[in-house]
Amino acid sequence: MATTPKWIMVGGEGPESYNQNSSYQRALLEAAKEKMSEAIKAKLSLDLISDRFSVADFGCASGPNTFVAVQNIIDAVEDKYRKETGQNPAENIEFQVLFNDFTTNDFNTLFQSLPAGRRYYSAGVPGSFFERVLPKESFHIGVINYAFHFTSKIPKGITDRDSPSWNRDMHCTGFNEAVKKAYLDQYSADTKILLDARADELVPGGLMLLFGSCLRDGVKMSETSKGIVLDAVGASLNDLAQQGVIEQDKVDSFSTPLYFAEENELKQIIEETGRFTIEAFEDIIHAKGEFTLDPKVLAVSCRASFGTFLSQHFGEQVFTKVFDLIEAKLRQELPRLLNAKPGMQYLIVLRKKN
Amino acid sequence: MATTPKWIMVGGEGPESYNQNSSYQRALLEAAKEKMSEAIKAKLSLDLISDRFSVADFGCASGPNTFVAVQNIIDAVEDKYRKETGQNPAENIEFQVLFNDFTTNDFNTLFQSLPAGRRYYSAGVPGSFFERVLPKESFHIGVINYAFHFTSKIPKGITDRDSPSWNRDMHCTGFNEAVKKAYLDQYSADTKILLDARADELVPGGLMLLFGSCLRDGVKMSETSKGIVLDAVGASLNDLAQQGVIEQDKVDSFSTPLYFAEENELKQIIEETGRFTIEAFEDIIHAKGEFTLDPKVLAVSCRASFGTFLSQHFGEQVFTKVFDLIEAKLRQELPRLLNAKPGMQYLIVLRKKN
Repeated sequence: MATTPKWIMVGGEGPESYNQNSSYQRALLEAAKEKMSEAIKAKLSLDLISDRFSVADFGCASGPNTFVAVQNIIDAVEDKYRKETGQNPAENIEFQVLFNDFTTNDFNTLFQSLPAGRRYYSAGVPGSFFERVLPKESFHIGVINYAFHFTSKIPKGITDRDSPSWNRDMHCTGFNEAVKKAYLDQYSADTKILLDARADELVPGGLMLLFGSCLRDGVKMSETSKGIVLDAVGASLNDLAQQGVIEQDKVDSFSTPLYFAEENELKQIIEETGRFTIEAFEDIIHAKGEFTLDPKVLAVSCRASFGTFLSQHFGEQVFTKVFDLIEAKLRQELPRLLNAKPGMQYLIVLRKKN
Repeated sequence: MATTPKWIMVGGEGPESYNQNSSYQRALLEAAKEKMSEAIKAKLSLDLISDRFSVADFGCASGPNTFVAVQNIIDAVEDKYRKETGQNPAENIEFQVLFNDFTTNDFNTLFQSLPAGRRYYSAGVPGSFFERVLPKESFHIGVINYAFHFTSKIPKGITDRDSPSWNRDMHCTGFNEAVKKAYLDQYSADTKILLDARADELVPGGLMLLFGSCLRDGVKMSETSKGIVLDAVGASLNDLAQQGVIEQDKVDSFSTPLYFAEENELKQIIEETGRFTIEAFEDIIHAKGEFTLDPKVLAVSCRASFGTFLSQHFGEQVFTKVFDLIEAKLRQELPRLLNAKPGMQYLIVLRKKN
């Protein structure tokens, strides 16, 4: 991990912050709310809901989606408790929310924007979710919201010109078999470590809720709108290299620690981990579909998610120039965006085996 | 609480930060280390040391003393476990440290300066320690390091010219009976709430370790070196008012939410809370004694502790001017400082009643 730049969302609450530009990620939470409540009702054992109930969000960023996600979970747990026991949860249960993200995440902004009137105790848990960050059996329900597509580092060979898995693109487009294999191997290894760590930290019978995006089987990343956006970032970087603003070598050695798996790959990785049962794997259709196809909105949202990562590699100045180019680039790509193959937005519910 | 400025230490790691200027507070921890280890050995029941052991620091600031305090505690717990069970604590116990301070504390700096190689999981817990901040029975040993002398707000009447407890000084000097009573009443009420909250959050039999300063019975605050330093800050503010830099009204309405209790007052408050037994009340003599009597060092350390609080009332500019004056002021006060009556540095060990 030491040599891999960290994928940190832009902190603070300014116009370019992730805090202000994560409505797309929010839409999935809203659309999946009912299915999530049903899953909690059906899959969470009532005897886990006792005097103390802990919810953990892994990869929480600096808000505000994390507050929506954890509140939805708490609402569902309270609802189940109220209906099945006839008792008032407020009188009997103390909720605690554990907010996890990298040590360099903007926890100050997160803490200062904690919702007024919340009915839970809060704690920030610094550290990479590819490692253990909590003691054993620390929480009852965990959530990962739009962060289940990261790898812990750039796969081996990807940035090495002499390697068969050298990748000229800045992400796994899906068109190069060797690159795809390198990314999948890395993702698979990392995700097993992630799930193993969470299984240690979960109480037996506890749930993990995964909200995110994957590929439908057989679809290539660059055939989807997300892939087209990533390609546009790459093309902007190449333009800057051709203009002499940055070195071509610097562009060629830039890669993202992202892998949007195919549905069946995801299922296989989870099953191979061996510590969870897959209780639900839901296809969530939401209002914002794949993306709002407005180049301006896309560019700003892209900047909030990518900005910090990009500027770690290229510096602050280049980062600004890239995002000046990207809106125009996305405008050119509108026809491709409109004809993109659909991706899949999922809610996956896992239960820790006893 | 809403109208009371928060006592926040200067964040970051710059030359004026609390992080860089808290060696005085550190000296007490070092001097009391052995007594603390003995107390843990004698007063902590072995059966509380099981697979998961949580330590909480209330009022942790942004480091680094908190790391020393919690490591000393963990070392002592491991030592006791090793000696009494013959087993290796590293194999059997997972430690977790809960770092608490105001929501506006600089948790980002705290997290980024977590010691490498630490053997504990970390979490930041935002919120005033005059309220519940953790679920019931969340931790086994709590520590309050140099933060047990705060009140939650300025006592009633203190800043009101028409009140019998109006205080012309910016702290409780001890020379005005009505002022002293107002401060003691407020401190007593707040401290009972604080201890009650901690008792809820502690496991039965768990310990609270309080490191701090108090007054020896019958000694007045302004007879001690700490009181003289506070008087010097007040005198600097009055100088600025006379120079027309700030309004006299603004100075008169400035008060600090601090009360250094007398030893017997402390004991009485703790006993009246009724939820703890006092297991030790140790007088700690340490190398830095009452203070390093170097006006330059005193001024800088004063700035790190007071700066944020002062600038909330007077603004950033006045804050800088006050601390330009204070070094000279302290130089004038050196004879008084050298003849000050001794204060008391304490380690108090409380055990939660079952």
